[in-house]
Amino acid sequence: MNEQPATPVIRYRMELAYDGTAYAGWQIQPDRMTVQERVQGAISQLSGEQVKVHGSGRTDQGVHARRQVAHFDLTVPVVARTLLRGLNALLPPDIRVLAVRRAPAEFHARRSASGKEYRYFIWNADIVPPVLRYYRAQVRKKLSLSAMQEAAAVLVGKHDFAAFTGNPAREVGTTVRELFELKVVKRGAEIVIIARADGFLYKMVRSLAGFLIRVGEGSATAADARRTLRSRVRTARVPTGQPQGLFLWKVSY
Amino acid sequence: MNEQPATPVIRYRMELAYDGTAYAGWQIQPDRMTVQERVQGAISQLSGEQVKVHGSGRTDQGVHARRQVAHFDLTVPVVARTLLRGLNALLPPDIRVLAVRRAPAEFHARRSASGKEYRYFIWNADIVPPVLRYYRAQVRKKLSLSAMQEAAAVLVGKHDFAAFTGNPAREVGTTVRELFELKVVKRGAEIVIIARADGFLYKMVRSLAGFLIRVGEGSATAADARRTLRSRVRTARVPTGQPQGLFLWKVSY
Repeated sequence: MNEQPATPVIRYRMELAYDGTAYAGWQIQPDRMTVQERVQGAISQLSGEQVKVHGSGRTDQGVHARRQVAHFDLTVPVVARTLLRGLNALLPPDIRVLAVRRAPAEFHARRSASGKEYRYFIWNADIVPPVLRYYRAQVRKKLSLSAMQEAAAVLVGKHDFAAFTGNPAREVGTTVRELFELKVVKRGAEIVIIARADGFLYKMVRSLAGFLIRVGEGSATAADARRTLRSRVRTARVPTGQPQGLFLWKVSY
Repeated sequence: MNEQPATPVIRYRMELAYDGTAYAGWQIQPDRMTVQERVQGAISQLSGEQVKVHGSGRTDQGVHARRQVAHFDLTVPVVARTLLRGLNALLPPDIRVLAVRRAPAEFHARRSASGKEYRYFIWNADIVPPVLRYYRAQVRKKLSLSAMQEAAAVLVGKHDFAAFTGNPAREVGTTVRELFELKVVKRGAEIVIIARADGFLYKMVRSLAGFLIRVGEGSATAADARRTLRSRVRTARVPTGQPQGLFLWKVSY
């Protein structure tokens, strides 16, 4: 047997914030700039190694991250502080590395995650303040906070969320997820949906937000939330919320 | 005597919000795009009249407005609601008209103002969140809130602020202003300077902010605030704070 000895690698865990406005989302795509490509490029440039960066999950085009987590491996160790400074010097100001540290070899940004929090920011008024235009989903019609809260309470818990994913056929495994929290809070003209779960399906947060907005507008109810969950089929009752309101807020391990 | 009868005009008062990032400030300048030019252009386009828009004051390049006030005259009346909708349809999303209404002929956005409030936002940490990068002045060195508050208290009141203007020679009248309030508050990594006065000199808020930042860093004191005021001469003790932290917050009448 001619087994190649595995090159010993050093695993790094990084935390990132980004403004998703200028990117076609997290994941590398041909012909379109993505956050992953920028970050991989910067690490490769700094380390001289061809690096692959693994995120805790994808974020779509226009979606932001307050705190994304990712990992990557190097064969030659670099001091974490040097990586932090060097990467922030190389990256554009719409992507910032918040922290870098060495991690155990078994750490995996996606597989090791025990939960995630997303926040969806709605500006519920006729005019969005210019400085927030890339960071809020606008809904002009006055939303009923209590109706949204009632429907959100129905969705909390362990359910099959097949009706709240962009494309059930795309999901590899189960479409069951446990939604630990789905809170709707109001701050002035702003309504924030806080969603915490053990994991999210593709476009699940924007689907939940899109549905809750319909509820707030009076065109769906908490009973529809129950029915939609049970149906396991996505209908027109579940539109996808605008991407720019969404922030990946936190990943837990 | 061949006196021309004055064309009767209808005066309008408008409130505006803008993201100053892309503009060379409020006031029209040759070869550089300004907020005033954009707004005048939109009103002229909508009304078919050559209009001049008078702001409550200038804001510099990169400075934002949460609520700027301006006035303009039309010879043919247009319903205020039509102006509001039409202007927001014509203007780019980084300028929004928040309100338009008819005003008495003697209303003047600058001369009728009884006071103004500016807020200056400092991000006091190593890394500015990407979504705030155009809206915060970054200071890396840890600032002493109590030192800043002590110095701010000295500056409150009616004083000759000649030492806190960009260019005293540029000021037409007196350099005496009454600072009703100069408050320094902390919210997490953010330090906000709230300044309310009967009026502000050219670059006065950014000069006050620049000075207070030096105080917070430990390189000036409340005693220096007193000395600087009395000297009426701008020195290196008074740097000009970065523009992107500054918001024209409110104009009072």
